[in-house]
Amino acid sequence: MKIKTLIISWAFVGILAVTGVVSAKEPIDPIMPVKDINLAQVELGKKLYFDPRLSKSGFISCNSCHNLSMGGTDNLKTSIGHNWQQGPINAPTVLNSSMNVAQFWDGRAADLKEQAGGPIASPGEMAFTHTLAIEVLESIPQYVTEFKLVFGTDNINIDHVTQAIAEFEKTLVTPNSRFDQWLLGDKDALTEEELAGYQLFKKSGCVICHNGAAVGGNSFQKMGVLEPYEAKSPAEGLSAVTGKESDHFKFKVPTLRNVELTYPYFHDGEAETLTEAVDVMGRLQLGKEFTQDENASIVAFLKTLTGDQPSFTFPILPPSTDKTPQPKPFE
Amino acid sequence: MKIKTLIISWAFVGILAVTGVVSAKEPIDPIMPVKDINLAQVELGKKLYFDPRLSKSGFISCNSCHNLSMGGTDNLKTSIGHNWQQGPINAPTVLNSSMNVAQFWDGRAADLKEQAGGPIASPGEMAFTHTLAIEVLESIPQYVTEFKLVFGTDNINIDHVTQAIAEFEKTLVTPNSRFDQWLLGDKDALTEEELAGYQLFKKSGCVICHNGAAVGGNSFQKMGVLEPYEAKSPAEGLSAVTGKESDHFKFKVPTLRNVELTYPYFHDGEAETLTEAVDVMGRLQLGKEFTQDENASIVAFLKTLTGDQPSFTFPILPPSTDKTPQPKPFE
Repeated sequence: MKIKTLIISWAFVGILAVTGVVSAKEPIDPIMPVKDINLAQVELGKKLYFDPRLSKSGFISCNSCHNLSMGGTDNLKTSIGHNWQQGPINAPTVLNSSMNVAQFWDGRAADLKEQAGGPIASPGEMAFTHTLAIEVLESIPQYVTEFKLVFGTDNINIDHVTQAIAEFEKTLVTPNSRFDQWLLGDKDALTEEELAGYQLFKKSGCVICHNGAAVGGNSFQKMGVLEPYEAKSPAEGLSAVTGKESDHFKFKVPTLRNVELTYPYFHDGEAETLTEAVDVMGRLQLGKEFTQDENASIVAFLKTLTGDQPSFTFPILPPSTDKTPQPKPFE
Repeated sequence: MKIKTLIISWAFVGILAVTGVVSAKEPIDPIMPVKDINLAQVELGKKLYFDPRLSKSGFISCNSCHNLSMGGTDNLKTSIGHNWQQGPINAPTVLNSSMNVAQFWDGRAADLKEQAGGPIASPGEMAFTHTLAIEVLESIPQYVTEFKLVFGTDNINIDHVTQAIAEFEKTLVTPNSRFDQWLLGDKDALTEEELAGYQLFKKSGCVICHNGAAVGGNSFQKMGVLEPYEAKSPAEGLSAVTGKESDHFKFKVPTLRNVELTYPYFHDGEAETLTEAVDVMGRLQLGKEFTQDENASIVAFLKTLTGDQPSFTFPILPPSTDKTPQPKPFE
């Protein structure tokens, strides 16, 4: 529905945009600050997000692969898991991930809460089990007290854990990018080149998939429409979830928010630079060969999507006790 | 010198302490807040401390093994290095490490600046080289600008890098523990059991090595004086640095500040609990078998040494560019 409306209002939007008039009809919406958050859950979730004791080794936390110092990613092609296993897919950014239509590249988790439980129990990632993770948390009095305070329960369960992590992740939005400043009426926020890049981004069709507040994240699309994409990853995409042949090699369209920080690109991480990513996307998805100047202007526009990064105090974790099960990094 | 003075003033100190009178003669000094710091270096050093691009893999930072969420350690027996290599020794805490007589368990680095360069280039740890690390930093314009601002130089070198990291580490002190509150005159800051534990800590001789502001860190002592210690680590101690047979199996006495957070204990990390560590130390170093109650009171005292943990905003790292050498996690 949205896409149809977009296409119809194309020329109109374009005219408004080039003249610098801010229009409610732009296909990209500004990132809004977080509202309606449970702050106690956020504080607990922040600790859990940074706590490597949710992994078998005691070494890997959520932040290991979704590093909030680095655009909410690990900036590796594919991630490093327990025992230095090489992951099959590029770690998507956690920034603005609450806006995704579903979680993971293939959408196999409905929301952040469901997602958060995945890596903990994945043998190639944190290699733990939910039961063992809960045993660790229940052995730590400060956690027991905090879970009781936040959830009113004497027994910690994985639902509380993932709920708190998800609530923290909801705070990880990045408003106030230069592009959003422009959207919100500051016509000097973008340079001419950046604005031209945005026009080209719209005119070429990039915006058909990369739209909305997250500039993506709201649909699944086939990787390689007009030319096939030779992936380095074994991931098969949405069909792994739906079982439909027609969903084969469809992946969630990644957000382009903070894309300057979330290199390398694509689900297999094979595009090292934005220049390369724009070139490949143009050819494979749109059948377009961007000139060097066109490519550069789109890249210039994309870099205006870097917003204010989450700013928070580094959490201090409650210490283990004599009863806490020991991590097992080398077993 | 200091130790001699201590022993002479023993009875006197003891009497003052049990009566709750604060005395300048206590063998432990309070941790003082940081003074005379170069704040610009600290801010740069904080980024570098958290930057995994100083490792070959792009995955391991200083904070990986000296985690400031977890008492400045990794809470593992021995650390995990590049390609999940098992380190030979327990990662010592970075907290209050500026007070150490030298760095590393065997004192092979004179100071924090010298220490900081070690793990970057160690094949079993970050597995990089100083040259490659500098190449990475010089490819990142925001770093180039910040180094120029802080050090007034156009060329980044490893001395700048380690100087900035060391300056950040100097801020990682933990004042205001309950024990320090007591030292500073609040006689209600400790319970009777904790105070009894402190008296026993002094009377039994623990304080002969664990003294000063860091409650350790200022001398090298043989591990296993009255009974041999069967270490799980191949480390030979100070003799590796001095070449003297008499220094064999001498290790830097670890700080007991925040010891509640820095488990497991000893240079091989084989003591999982404070109870075990106190028991082993009593027998091997002092020829004493502490009763269960005595052990418990010493442990209670040790837990009063947990100070205010460093509180800071999680750093946002400047992004790599198209020219930045790629990390090589799987080579």
